[in-house]
Amino acid sequence: MDASAALHAPDVDTITLTLPDGATREVPYGTLPRDVVASIGERLLRAAVAVSVDGQIQDLITPLRKGGAFRVLTEKDPQALDVLRHSGAHVLATAVRRLRPDAKIGFGPAIEDGFYYDFEVEKPFTPDDLAAFEAEMRKVAQEKLAFERSEVSRDEARVVFREDPLKLERLQDLPEDEVISTYRDGDFVDLCRGPHVPDTSWLKHFKLLNTAGAYWRGDVKRQMLQRIYATAFFKKDDLEQHLHRIEEAKRRDHRLLGRQLDLFQFHAVSPGAAFWTPRGTILYNTIVDFVRERQQRDFNEVKTPLLYNKALWEQSGHWGKYRENMFLVLDNETNEHDMSLKPMNCPSHYVYFNSSKHSYRELPLRLVTMDVLHRNEVSGALSGLTRVRQFQQDDCHVFLREDQITAEVRFLLDFILGYYEAFGLKATLKFATRPEQRIGSDEQWDRAEAGLKAALGATGMPYELKPGDGAFYGPKIDFDVTDSIGRAWQLGTIQLDYMNPERFDMSYVGEDNAPHRPVVIHRAVSGSFERFIAILIEHFAGNFPTWLAPEQVRVVPIAADYDAYAEEVVGALRAAGVRVGYDREHRKDYREVIKDASHLKVPYMAVVGRREQEQRTVTLRRRGAEKQQESLGLDALVARLADEIRTRALWQDAPPTA
Amino acid sequence: MDASAALHAPDVDTITLTLPDGATREVPYGTLPRDVVASIGERLLRAAVAVSVDGQIQDLITPLRKGGAFRVLTEKDPQALDVLRHSGAHVLATAVRRLRPDAKIGFGPAIEDGFYYDFEVEKPFTPDDLAAFEAEMRKVAQEKLAFERSEVSRDEARVVFREDPLKLERLQDLPEDEVISTYRDGDFVDLCRGPHVPDTSWLKHFKLLNTAGAYWRGDVKRQMLQRIYATAFFKKDDLEQHLHRIEEAKRRDHRLLGRQLDLFQFHAVSPGAAFWTPRGTILYNTIVDFVRERQQRDFNEVKTPLLYNKALWEQSGHWGKYRENMFLVLDNETNEHDMSLKPMNCPSHYVYFNSSKHSYRELPLRLVTMDVLHRNEVSGALSGLTRVRQFQQDDCHVFLREDQITAEVRFLLDFILGYYEAFGLKATLKFATRPEQRIGSDEQWDRAEAGLKAALGATGMPYELKPGDGAFYGPKIDFDVTDSIGRAWQLGTIQLDYMNPERFDMSYVGEDNAPHRPVVIHRAVSGSFERFIAILIEHFAGNFPTWLAPEQVRVVPIAADYDAYAEEVVGALRAAGVRVGYDREHRKDYREVIKDASHLKVPYMAVVGRREQEQRTVTLRRRGAEKQQESLGLDALVARLADEIRTRALWQDAPPTA
Repeated sequence: MDASAALHAPDVDTITLTLPDGATREVPYGTLPRDVVASIGERLLRAAVAVSVDGQIQDLITPLRKGGAFRVLTEKDPQALDVLRHSGAHVLATAVRRLRPDAKIGFGPAIEDGFYYDFEVEKPFTPDDLAAFEAEMRKVAQEKLAFERSEVSRDEARVVFREDPLKLERLQDLPEDEVISTYRDGDFVDLCRGPHVPDTSWLKHFKLLNTAGAYWRGDVKRQMLQRIYATAFFKKDDLEQHLHRIEEAKRRDHRLLGRQLDLFQFHAVSPGAAFWTPRGTILYNTIVDFVRERQQRDFNEVKTPLLYNKALWEQSGHWGKYRENMFLVLDNETNEHDMSLKPMNCPSHYVYFNSSKHSYRELPLRLVTMDVLHRNEVSGALSGLTRVRQFQQDDCHVFLREDQITAEVRFLLDFILGYYEAFGLKATLKFATRPEQRIGSDEQWDRAEAGLKAALGATGMPYELKPGDGAFYGPKIDFDVTDSIGRAWQLGTIQLDYMNPERFDMSYVGEDNAPHRPVVIHRAVSGSFERFIAILIEHFAGNFPTWLAPEQVRVVPIAADYDAYAEEVVGALRAAGVRVGYDREHRKDYREVIKDASHLKVPYMAVVGRREQEQRTVTLRRRGAEKQQESLGLDALVARLADEIRTRALWQDAPPTA
Repeated sequence: MDASAALHAPDVDTITLTLPDGATREVPYGTLPRDVVASIGERLLRAAVAVSVDGQIQDLITPLRKGGAFRVLTEKDPQALDVLRHSGAHVLATAVRRLRPDAKIGFGPAIEDGFYYDFEVEKPFTPDDLAAFEAEMRKVAQEKLAFERSEVSRDEARVVFREDPLKLERLQDLPEDEVISTYRDGDFVDLCRGPHVPDTSWLKHFKLLNTAGAYWRGDVKRQMLQRIYATAFFKKDDLEQHLHRIEEAKRRDHRLLGRQLDLFQFHAVSPGAAFWTPRGTILYNTIVDFVRERQQRDFNEVKTPLLYNKALWEQSGHWGKYRENMFLVLDNETNEHDMSLKPMNCPSHYVYFNSSKHSYRELPLRLVTMDVLHRNEVSGALSGLTRVRQFQQDDCHVFLREDQITAEVRFLLDFILGYYEAFGLKATLKFATRPEQRIGSDEQWDRAEAGLKAALGATGMPYELKPGDGAFYGPKIDFDVTDSIGRAWQLGTIQLDYMNPERFDMSYVGEDNAPHRPVVIHRAVSGSFERFIAILIEHFAGNFPTWLAPEQVRVVPIAADYDAYAEEVVGALRAAGVRVGYDREHRKDYREVIKDASHLKVPYMAVVGRREQEQRTVTLRRRGAEKQQESLGLDALVARLADEIRTRALWQDAPPTA
């Protein structure tokens, strides 16, 4: 036993465990959870993946060193999935080392949606390698190898990993007082804290996904390892659903669809800022117009500057805490970087609010802005429209009296939920309450939380309570939306703010003719339009409902003889506000014509030839139902499209389920 | 005679003058123009203000020292006005010195629209002082004092101005070889080059306007002088018109109206960038929407980034020639100022054009953008909305084949003229042709100028030819608009550009399947929306036609009993897309209600009481015709306003002429 092991000597002889039913068990220090579970029931032991002790997950073979609430995790527990996946990483490494004994091993953690393992090898892995590894993994699983844990001294560990330099390096970094443990399944041994499933046969439903280079410890100055990404589930259905979702997500990737549908581009001259093409600009403006229309009556839109002096950022606190995320601008007159592009709109709205006196009768005052914002994201983190440097938000700040909180939050909840509904996005709510570190009195927090809770109750919707997760300046409601393939995206927020009204010394004149401090609510719905459009592209797989489609109908005369009539059709549609494309190339190969429109996912094609001209009709092909061509009178066509656009109808084919 | 005088000895004995009819006159060196004019005719001498010799203006008493084209200026010549006004400055100083002998004199030049004189005095002048000076000026004018010129040595001048330190300082700065001259009228003598009218009686129609502090020589480190601004005309009518225009301009000042109508604000945290209030934002967006609607069919709107790497600005040439006008941004990753906010949209459009291949069939391709632009104007130059740091333009770049120039310019001319017409602004055209310094072949210039000329001819409108005034990269057409009080504003432009297609290596595939270089046209219509809105505010004196008015009608129930019906009126108008204000304060003093709406220049007030409720009507008051109240059915009201907005009708009261 080396020096560090002495540190782990027990200070107690027995440990007290509290079972879910409230009963307690006293067990000797170092008892294995397996034995505790067995004493509860053999069936439970067979179902047990791991245990939770005082909120910490550990496996069945790690000695108990402290007591507390004791709970058995079965495959129904979401946390059990991480244990399975971590074991999946070991099974992967086991398989790789069988086939490629020269592979040095790095890290192999569970991650969101799966796991990976990093290997140091001469050449990148090929898809064939991955297939072979996966087949070998199935063998390892069938062998039902137990995961065996050993607690070893640092010196012993150095011997075990003598041929794995990355593990030796890791070993050096472990703190002196760390329990050093290894896990073995068959011939494979890893330096690992656990926890693991009991044996490799638990790995039934898994899939290797892809491989990619990754620097050792994420450090570009260290060697490049080969990372294999994979996933695993307890149930076959879950795996299949997940793989389908990955396939769907690939097919829907907004970066690829953005190019295919000719919506946006990125160029090296402006990293992280989109060039919106004519089609993309129509889409963007359509959404902005929609937001503007919905906000027209109850909100006050303002346009504010993008560039501000340091003085404002000092007052808002951004200069001290957020400066590295802002783009600093050189002031020619002082030759200092004492100006910055705004990363958010809040301070602009505070300046405007403070520019005049306000009566209690004017409140709530809802200011909205869609100005361009900039945040200085590092270039390596930029990705499509979801991580950008330039973006616009549908940003609102409500200035209100404290007695208006419930009514206002209820109003905003309805507004936001209605907005998502218009796009066919389902929302779920999270209510985050007072954190440990906070400003404001307990009475203020009581009132604020009660206000939000009452408003939430009035929606009749379930919500997830996140105690302690509020901002330090007030409680909040966050909105996640679920898209058509079941992915969740955090989008909107309603945040109460007691801090900035103080910081900016805001006031209104009350009914008592005395000055009062208002409360501020920060409200976002789409978040950034850029990210929202990315989500919409993926949600609809590019099959936009007609009202959002940049080109809503493409008119195609099949020969020059019908151009005049085709132009009449185009004119009638345009006069009704329909966005019309006009394909007058009269191509012989009609499949080419269709291919063009399909590629751009144009909702409708209106074809005109002799018969259509004579009867003043069009032959209409609808995207996603191309086989059911329909003959339609010109007036009926115009009426149908105009109506579909006006009502912002969502299509049956959006989202298509593939 | 001192040393410098020797420099002015004649190198010739006689001078040859060419008269407008082509005849020539030989006169001795140093002959006074007065004698030449007298020899032509006594009547002409009486009408003569000054003469032009070889394009230089001089007065009748300055010796002729060189020959050339000789022309007599009478009061019909625009250039004669400057001479009159310069003499006006002397008459002003004459009067001031009579009443305030202690006043030291600075400079007193003619300026655009008038003249000023700077005085060093103990205390600023009061309006009473100005009235006294003006009265004294009338006396000086009646005394018909001749302007007498003397050419003196530097030493003689030092004696004359021994008590005027500012003149002595000026004297020191005069080059050694300068002819030093003084002008005297009565007791007043000034160090002055001339030219002047023959005597003070020419000053008949003048007016002192205002007084303001001005640093000696514009240097903030020197003493503050008192500047008196004034104007003078040959004709009474011209003076009156001008004074009326000044009054109108004051009344219409967009900075004052912007505050009164609650349209925009400026704050020290962002100099030169407007905060658009809710009302101002509606106005701004209404104009943007109008532009967008007009451009929807034939133009392609794109949205492009605001922030670009140095590489782009180097390619465009801005980095070398325009950098001090750009806001440079710190790149955190290089710690250099190697990014900049865009000051114009052209390069963004070039990048987009170059991002894909183009066929000759796609041209002309018209890209428009309304992105936010920034220019680093010095803070001292900022003024209202006309000199700002942040602005947006309706900026267009057309990419076209050379054979399309005439048709395209004609299309753009119609577009621009139609746009101004919608606001009741009259446009005049200027055609600027090839300058001395230029790129491109003579054949290219021939074709380009012929193209523009043909397009201009097709409008049937007169245009001013500006030979040699084109840009070095191509000829252009500029648009001046005249507002309702006769002031001209340069707004739009159509510029041909042969340079940037080279610089950015643009190309399209021709009918011959080979690459060709396109031509670029830069087109602006409004210029910046900020400046355009300033012009519109002054043009309409804030009395916007209904379609532009932020609040189009204000509904006023005269008591709470009629609120329900008033809300019905509000709802019906809103449903028709009318922007409605709702005054439900039921104030007893009806004049207060009217004052509020008048102050904001709301086009209509719809008042409802018992009778209106019973009859389902409103009583309508129209801005500018308040005495003609009108009773109107609810449906008729909605129809009238919706129609007025839809047709963007211009009002009879816009512009009002009082």
